[in-house]
Amino acid sequence: MPELRKDPIIGRWVIIATERAKRPDQFQNLSHDAPQEKPCPFCEGKESETPPEIYAVRTRDGRPNGPGWEVRVVPSITPFLRIEGDLDRTGRGLYDMMNGLGAHEIIIETNKHIPNIADLENEQIARVITCYINRLLDLEKDTRFKYVLVFKNHGWIAGGGRVKHSRSQLIATPVNPKRVKEELVGARHYHELHERCIFCDLIQQEIAQEERIILDIDGFLAVVPFASRFPFEVWILPKKHNCDFTSLLEPERRELAKILKSVLLKLKIGLNDPPYNYIIHTAPFKRPKSGYWKTVDEDFHWHIEITPRLTRVAGFEWGTGFYICPLPPEHAAKFLREVKID
Amino acid sequence: MPELRKDPIIGRWVIIATERAKRPDQFQNLSHDAPQEKPCPFCEGKESETPPEIYAVRTRDGRPNGPGWEVRVVPSITPFLRIEGDLDRTGRGLYDMMNGLGAHEIIIETNKHIPNIADLENEQIARVITCYINRLLDLEKDTRFKYVLVFKNHGWIAGGGRVKHSRSQLIATPVNPKRVKEELVGARHYHELHERCIFCDLIQQEIAQEERIILDIDGFLAVVPFASRFPFEVWILPKKHNCDFTSLLEPERRELAKILKSVLLKLKIGLNDPPYNYIIHTAPFKRPKSGYWKTVDEDFHWHIEITPRLTRVAGFEWGTGFYICPLPPEHAAKFLREVKID
Repeated sequence: MPELRKDPIIGRWVIIATERAKRPDQFQNLSHDAPQEKPCPFCEGKESETPPEIYAVRTRDGRPNGPGWEVRVVPSITPFLRIEGDLDRTGRGLYDMMNGLGAHEIIIETNKHIPNIADLENEQIARVITCYINRLLDLEKDTRFKYVLVFKNHGWIAGGGRVKHSRSQLIATPVNPKRVKEELVGARHYHELHERCIFCDLIQQEIAQEERIILDIDGFLAVVPFASRFPFEVWILPKKHNCDFTSLLEPERRELAKILKSVLLKLKIGLNDPPYNYIIHTAPFKRPKSGYWKTVDEDFHWHIEITPRLTRVAGFEWGTGFYICPLPPEHAAKFLREVKID
Repeated sequence: MPELRKDPIIGRWVIIATERAKRPDQFQNLSHDAPQEKPCPFCEGKESETPPEIYAVRTRDGRPNGPGWEVRVVPSITPFLRIEGDLDRTGRGLYDMMNGLGAHEIIIETNKHIPNIADLENEQIARVITCYINRLLDLEKDTRFKYVLVFKNHGWIAGGGRVKHSRSQLIATPVNPKRVKEELVGARHYHELHERCIFCDLIQQEIAQEERIILDIDGFLAVVPFASRFPFEVWILPKKHNCDFTSLLEPERRELAKILKSVLLKLKIGLNDPPYNYIIHTAPFKRPKSGYWKTVDEDFHWHIEITPRLTRVAGFEWGTGFYICPLPPEHAAKFLREVKID
């Protein structure tokens, strides 16, 4: 069983791999170059090469674990966390730990061998979003979990694997991740002072200042954040207050698909298909024990953070949480605004 | 002038490069492979190829900016922060910013073309430590600064440059970096509850448990932290309580040099010269405005964090602050204990 361990000084949880741990000597000759591509187990017709599916969207005839799907969700074959068991939270002196309980799923975004979600049709991206939502709603029922993180690693440097087939991942965790907690606490603190959502205020200011906006389509805004950590970092936010990504209605999912595709296409075309990650930050599950559920409806505002991986992050950033961004956000926004995508 | 910008939600400061900013299109074809090595401006005899020195240790005859030095400190030719000017802290709506005021210095650790500090003599590493201390004491006099971060980037993936000559860097900042603040707050909170230093307690527990200790030499301990973020992460801590790295006496500097060299040699030999970073975490300058100076003497415990860069850090880690470490710390410690260095 993997372990969750807590740093006693700053309270950060870390997943420590055990069964799937590498041997120490396997780190000796590690290369950071992208290795050769592997045969794809994610294309339609290869269903037997993955573990049995957890969920699938089918618009054509077809049986589970056979062809005919549009989006398909399977368990990770190398899960960071394990779905079976109890938490068994224990302490030993200063140290807190619990079993590495959780879910780790792969969301296969297309039945064709297309590497970048930016190249899928709007309608297909909307199906992927619906799939994220349905998986979140399903995992919410498991009371062992406090949070589900939906994220994408595109390209080798961004943690993408050796198979170039567009997919995202989700990890359900029994603790609220540190960065999410910080946002919840910061947003709650602002709400206590102003009785307003900080993200709503931020959206108003961005619309007024204009200079960091990339796209303003329907109900969504794509902006380069004022204090960007990375060049060409982009946040996508719903303009109307909403803490909960899973509450998106069908028309909103299509609008989100459109702006997500547009931003990712601008990155692909403007920056020569860079490696990138995106992460959905939504409110944690509303559970009395989460400590955040009371006011999260008014405080928090779900959003997607997209971070191209164009710089090496060095010792200074790791050791301090203090990032150096070599490109002013306003320049990045202007550049991305001007990239033509059709 | 570079800018310091604050994330309004979680309060993280970011340095935004301006003059030395790249153009957006310079990010289009970025490679993560190590580029060709550049001619070295840091060797003895090449003093005219760097900006004039800020400080040097000379044990032989020699004039400033000429040969005869053992350790030499020069300003960075591509500084992230600028030394001249005022902070001009301003706000615009939600957003806080100030001038990117600070110091960015390069500490050249040897007059010979040696890439890894692990290969220097103990005595020379002790001189480097003395040089760190003297620069910290000098920069403390500048009341515009709150913190000085001393760090090293070894190897291309860890942010090392195209010149393979052993050196470290320091950055003096007008704000306390987020990660350092978190440690200070966490340590203070523990002290309020227990009236003991959390690091001292951690050292006691590590000595009792033994399984994560790599070296226990004289006054210092090298351990793999219980909740390691990275495989083979190592912390070096003084066994006796001390918040202030600059207070080290001459014999302690020699002891620290010895354990630092031993750990870095074990990494080099055991893991085939991996890229790594190290960072010194010491107490912030004792200034009434820092907010931490009152109790920091009792709360905090200076230490060095060494992080080999053997894994790709992916979207999950960036978006959550929740790390996945593919090697149990106890296995890493055992492996490093067994690496022979002489």
